[in-house]
Amino acid sequence: METEPKKLRTLTRKPDRGGDRGLLDEVLDDALVGTVSTVVDGWPWSVPMLFARLGDDVIIHGSTGAGLLRHVAEGSAVTLTAYVLDGLVVADTMFDHSANYRAAVVRGVLEPVDDAAAALAALTDRIVPGRSSETPPITAKQVAATRTLRLPIVDGRWIAKARSGGAGIGTDDWTGIVPVSTVYGEPVAETGDTVPASVRRLVDEQ
Amino acid sequence: METEPKKLRTLTRKPDRGGDRGLLDEVLDDALVGTVSTVVDGWPWSVPMLFARLGDDVIIHGSTGAGLLRHVAEGSAVTLTAYVLDGLVVADTMFDHSANYRAAVVRGVLEPVDDAAAALAALTDRIVPGRSSETPPITAKQVAATRTLRLPIVDGRWIAKARSGGAGIGTDDWTGIVPVSTVYGEPVAETGDTVPASVRRLVDEQ
Repeated sequence: METEPKKLRTLTRKPDRGGDRGLLDEVLDDALVGTVSTVVDGWPWSVPMLFARLGDDVIIHGSTGAGLLRHVAEGSAVTLTAYVLDGLVVADTMFDHSANYRAAVVRGVLEPVDDAAAALAALTDRIVPGRSSETPPITAKQVAATRTLRLPIVDGRWIAKARSGGAGIGTDDWTGIVPVSTVYGEPVAETGDTVPASVRRLVDEQ
Repeated sequence: METEPKKLRTLTRKPDRGGDRGLLDEVLDDALVGTVSTVVDGWPWSVPMLFARLGDDVIIHGSTGAGLLRHVAEGSAVTLTAYVLDGLVVADTMFDHSANYRAAVVRGVLEPVDDAAAALAALTDRIVPGRSSETPPITAKQVAATRTLRLPIVDGRWIAKARSGGAGIGTDDWTGIVPVSTVYGEPVAETGDTVPASVRRLVDEQ
């Protein structure tokens, strides 16, 4: 597991779509859900989960009872893949249809975090910015029930890719883009009367 | 590769979230992008891509020059993971925050399709329903330049999972759900004047 195949480090297809660290961070900061993949007895194993980038780490978490996290915590190689679908590209032939997207792959081995409480607060604020300051500090018991791990972002072990623009075909037929976006709806109360300020901001300022 | 670990076939965590084939199909039919994962020299390798369910197959495609597809076409074990994020679950403690989602994992070995032209038309119509009948048939040359593969949906080799509802905590504080949805924006023309009927419907009837 010390060396990795060269083909994992390079874009063999459309290398012009490769991006820099800025693009990587943008994708990791825009996508709410990533897919964590590992290998079990030669089989790929993948689970979608919430994540957060915290500087040069990707933070993931789950219950200490969760199967995938228990496995990857033991030092297996993992990848985290995340994407944002920005648009559908409509062309005049089926072949030239495409999608505009931004995607990131981060590869490595998961490590324990130094400060799980801080990482979990950062993860909370990643999903609903400002929410951690509206809630009581996470307790030691809650931290102990949570497996909190970091995937370091290491040079040579990540890929960022993007496609934008139209189909690029000279034609009189209609070609173009259908923008795709993720939106938050009006909060639905389960208990209580006043929507927290963090939630209000998330919805109003999207 | 003939046998797979039992833990890949079972939900070790929250088995009540496991769903039936109806949920699997719903997720595969709602998610536009899936993450295809395989194993290369012991490392997980994952790439997000458009896909379509066609009966009991998941169809994926790409250029014959694409690295991942070239690898998995040779018979490696793969998983396709797809998710739909339906909402953010806001609780009164950080620990009880969650997400509402529907997720699918299909595991197996990719096989060639019998009729690539039909599969590619179905994939086109999955993304923009009705678009295949507005465009010329895909040519033999275009079919040859495309690697079109199917991942059979086989009993015991898929998992569908979902979470819905609120945080489920008795509290006077506000708890609730922020709905999340994916929306199409007004089409942006690159060439031509008249937005195709299929594209118009996709946007107007969402």
